[in-house]
Amino acid sequence: MATIKDVAGAAGVSVATVSRVLNDNGYVHEETRTRVIAAMEKLNYYPNEVARSLYKRESRLIGLLLPDITNPFFPQLARGAEDELNREGYRLIFGNSDEELKKELEYLQTFKQNHVAGIIAATNYPDLEEYSGMNHPVVFLDRTPEGAPSVSSDGYTGGKLAAEAIIYGKSRLITLLRGPAHLPTAQDRFNGALEILQQAEADFQVIETASFSFEDAQSMAKELFAAYPETDGVIASNDIQAAAVLHEALRLGRNVPEDIQIIGYDDIPQSELLFPPLSTIKQPAYDMGKEAAKLLLRIIKKQPLTETAIQMPVTYIRRKTTRKEDYDA
Amino acid sequence: MATIKDVAGAAGVSVATVSRVLNDNGYVHEETRTRVIAAMEKLNYYPNEVARSLYKRESRLIGLLLPDITNPFFPQLARGAEDELNREGYRLIFGNSDEELKKELEYLQTFKQNHVAGIIAATNYPDLEEYSGMNHPVVFLDRTPEGAPSVSSDGYTGGKLAAEAIIYGKSRLITLLRGPAHLPTAQDRFNGALEILQQAEADFQVIETASFSFEDAQSMAKELFAAYPETDGVIASNDIQAAAVLHEALRLGRNVPEDIQIIGYDDIPQSELLFPPLSTIKQPAYDMGKEAAKLLLRIIKKQPLTETAIQMPVTYIRRKTTRKEDYDA
Repeated sequence: MATIKDVAGAAGVSVATVSRVLNDNGYVHEETRTRVIAAMEKLNYYPNEVARSLYKRESRLIGLLLPDITNPFFPQLARGAEDELNREGYRLIFGNSDEELKKELEYLQTFKQNHVAGIIAATNYPDLEEYSGMNHPVVFLDRTPEGAPSVSSDGYTGGKLAAEAIIYGKSRLITLLRGPAHLPTAQDRFNGALEILQQAEADFQVIETASFSFEDAQSMAKELFAAYPETDGVIASNDIQAAAVLHEALRLGRNVPEDIQIIGYDDIPQSELLFPPLSTIKQPAYDMGKEAAKLLLRIIKKQPLTETAIQMPVTYIRRKTTRKEDYDA
Repeated sequence: MATIKDVAGAAGVSVATVSRVLNDNGYVHEETRTRVIAAMEKLNYYPNEVARSLYKRESRLIGLLLPDITNPFFPQLARGAEDELNREGYRLIFGNSDEELKKELEYLQTFKQNHVAGIIAATNYPDLEEYSGMNHPVVFLDRTPEGAPSVSSDGYTGGKLAAEAIIYGKSRLITLLRGPAHLPTAQDRFNGALEILQQAEADFQVIETASFSFEDAQSMAKELFAAYPETDGVIASNDIQAAAVLHEALRLGRNVPEDIQIIGYDDIPQSELLFPPLSTIKQPAYDMGKEAAKLLLRIIKKQPLTETAIQMPVTYIRRKTTRKEDYDA
């Protein structure tokens, strides 16, 4: 296989000159440039990405940090980012932090050592020095630290929409699930819902939930009906929780939505397959990933930015676990 | 930041010598080695992964190729692989092929250009020259090309277990869903089920399914009940299909499992949250990813191998969509 040295030798120039041609930076005489490219073609040399990244101190790799790809919200995000990056010839190095600082720092180190061209991070630690001290761009996903480029969806409005749906359907004793306290996204939707319930002077209680895991959702659902058997409306913090509540309600012989309304959050693909199909607040996960990639590529290419904190709209998807607004209780 | 050149200068040796020390290959006099390491420490030099990969022609990156991470079977696989690789200091470059040859070749090219240390591939094209011509190891996941290292699960037995469960529960008119014809894994489970149904001289029909997508599953379920309204047992090719069939059966007012039994395949985390919870054949997805990573690392480190074609066991998980074996029809 031909190396950059062979190309330099064949073209009668220095390796540094070949490097400048490869990376299209620094001055190279037009006649020299043509000679170098001819040598590359003759030797069937294709720029080695590793060598290229060494000369340029940057690669065509993008670091993607997610909390956990097995949470069904995140594969959509990852696909959106990947599909957009692919169109531009970029690839992903990918890692799950499990919301652990140690794992996150290890991945950031890996990204740096591989000279990624940029990072997309769904992190609980956007204020880490490791982010501000990076010499490549970072776009925060699902988080909006002040002044930093980010893509998120409007969780506060989402929470309001969810609570409004339950109130329109005339639930009398509402249970509001508060997602993990350390997740700003979960707290935004919680606060939005809280505001509407308070405004409406609704009768409601709050249940704290520790995580978004399947196991926690199942035990939470059991505890919910044990503690509040009379509840007739549940506002969940994500679709997994809502599915667990729906499961438990049906298991206890409740009719949904006649006896109890349930609304989720996210609109993961599985929610439509539940029976009755789950009403929920849709976050445009795939498009959020896509927008984050687009924003990052604009920053990498030093293109002008119209906005750096992109907030995507959320929508209420009424399926069959909430009642119509003109429901006659 | 210190470079390898600075280290060489400070130690009074050549860059090649520093490189040999870094990579622990070739002969280096012990006294020289100590001097180089002292210089590294003094200059606070840490081996740049890109430079390291250039010298070694290999990195701490592993390429992972999956069909589609939004298919809920694959995040578990990916996590299993990632968790195991992480423990050994390896990271993932990750891509979805969408089962398209063009995308797959592009990712393989990316893996090569970044000098991955190895590849884990869930591919429909294990016989590609690009795989055999690689000069780094490849472990096939979910596919078992002759003679190549691979990790899969026992689909044929899985299909048999699924059909046996439906027959034990005394379904009279069984529908067997044949997964995508081009996927050997889908055909293995199909053939296993077929054998049992034929042995039992069961009354059954086969429905072809084009893909594992959510949309196709939903339309397939509608067509199934339109074509065979009398069917009282469905053997699905994965859990998404089974969820769609369960949804449609409930929507049509059927009681599950009293009127109709349904069995899935995979045991994705969501299946337990369905109501009634889905009976299914469990593939140990997380462990399959982990085993693939372990096998790959053993090959990379040139450790002795006891087996190279690892087949993981599958198990029947009876939940509430199949009847007990002593069901009285």
